[in-house]
Amino acid sequence: MPNQTAAMLVIGDEILSGRTRDSNMHHLALALTEHGLALTEARVVADDHAAIVAAINELRAKYDHVFTSGGIGPTHDDITADAVAAAFGVAITHRADAMALLQAHYDRQGLPFNEARQRMARIPDTATLIDNPVSVAPGFTVRNVHVMAGVPRIFEAMLAGVLSGITHGVPLLSRTLRLERGEGDIATTFAAFAAEHPDLQMGSYPFNSNGSFGTNLVIRGTDAARLDAALAALEARLAS
Amino acid sequence: MPNQTAAMLVIGDEILSGRTRDSNMHHLALALTEHGLALTEARVVADDHAAIVAAINELRAKYDHVFTSGGIGPTHDDITADAVAAAFGVAITHRADAMALLQAHYDRQGLPFNEARQRMARIPDTATLIDNPVSVAPGFTVRNVHVMAGVPRIFEAMLAGVLSGITHGVPLLSRTLRLERGEGDIATTFAAFAAEHPDLQMGSYPFNSNGSFGTNLVIRGTDAARLDAALAALEARLAS
Repeated sequence: MPNQTAAMLVIGDEILSGRTRDSNMHHLALALTEHGLALTEARVVADDHAAIVAAINELRAKYDHVFTSGGIGPTHDDITADAVAAAFGVAITHRADAMALLQAHYDRQGLPFNEARQRMARIPDTATLIDNPVSVAPGFTVRNVHVMAGVPRIFEAMLAGVLSGITHGVPLLSRTLRLERGEGDIATTFAAFAAEHPDLQMGSYPFNSNGSFGTNLVIRGTDAARLDAALAALEARLAS
Repeated sequence: MPNQTAAMLVIGDEILSGRTRDSNMHHLALALTEHGLALTEARVVADDHAAIVAAINELRAKYDHVFTSGGIGPTHDDITADAVAAAFGVAITHRADAMALLQAHYDRQGLPFNEARQRMARIPDTATLIDNPVSVAPGFTVRNVHVMAGVPRIFEAMLAGVLSGITHGVPLLSRTLRLERGEGDIATTFAAFAAEHPDLQMGSYPFNSNGSFGTNLVIRGTDAARLDAALAALEARLAS
């Protein structure tokens, strides 16, 4: 069975204005690769109801899993939960299970469980809750859409919980050959080598350090021994 | 006239696998905000012809400008130029202007202008070239789509050239009030304040530092004096 596919949807004006630099996408990419899910597309949209609904509906139809970050806090600009409910055409209410979690949390802290905080218990019907071991307010899953917080520490904790419930695929492994040569110097040889190894993915990534250009050649696949052999063969080919 | 809208398309398997951490999106977000263009959506897709073509066509129809990064080098996995040509339904050839630039560059360096390097002169018909002051191989613009390199230093240099040719909009300014209080504590007051200032955008961004949670309240608009007044009013409101 081929690995399941996944998409990410980052929600938030602050990313698009440059005020905040997203780090959840990179974290998710590494975590999914390790878990054997293929992150196939990522999108960033603003805190805009119609934009979120449209993106959720496109991505959930196209991929096995959709992971979202951002917009589930207590403030008026946190509109993700309502948008996800609208995308699925289900109602959204202050859910009793989420209310109980939050009530207990604020009671322990001696803080009022006010209207704003109760907003974080608004969960679409049919959703299951995602545990938040950092600050209690839950994320949630509706079918194949996993809705998580934007604060990186909370996103990462929620993601670990979600992934533990998703069957492991075959992790994609990689080997990298770093060359102090430009891509133009090795591209023809590398293309021929890639054509001889159709079962492996090969990518070429130029870099620039201290003013000189080099190239990382990356071989990806699921079999470590096959990757090691391919790396050695590529190195020999380029040295000849 | 409202500011023009823009989208970004990041192209590359290496971002989606987590091997490389994209930094061009954050750079573009800051540069566009300063230039007065509204970055409204961003996407990351793999080095996949159909995915790139579909994303280019959706985004160019929806936004005034589309900025892409990645996939225009000399190797076999660099397929952006062909995908952009396909998206616009135009032919792609080794263009004489790009060939001349590259030939002169490699002659100066005493390097062979081989087939792989000539690949970087493949430019869609009707495109205008984007200057690459770092490593010569040009980007290009077809109508409202600006196709640039993925290496950050080159992306940034190309972008500066592209933006100098796009009329300045009104820069979006912001003021931030940093609070050592959770969002749930200030959300009701902040929502009321936002409702009283419909001409300004207000966002709330929780943060977590040294184990305690706080909130950045951000007010955005185009009039500095109005933002300063709103910031002072918000601070007073929350202190009362």
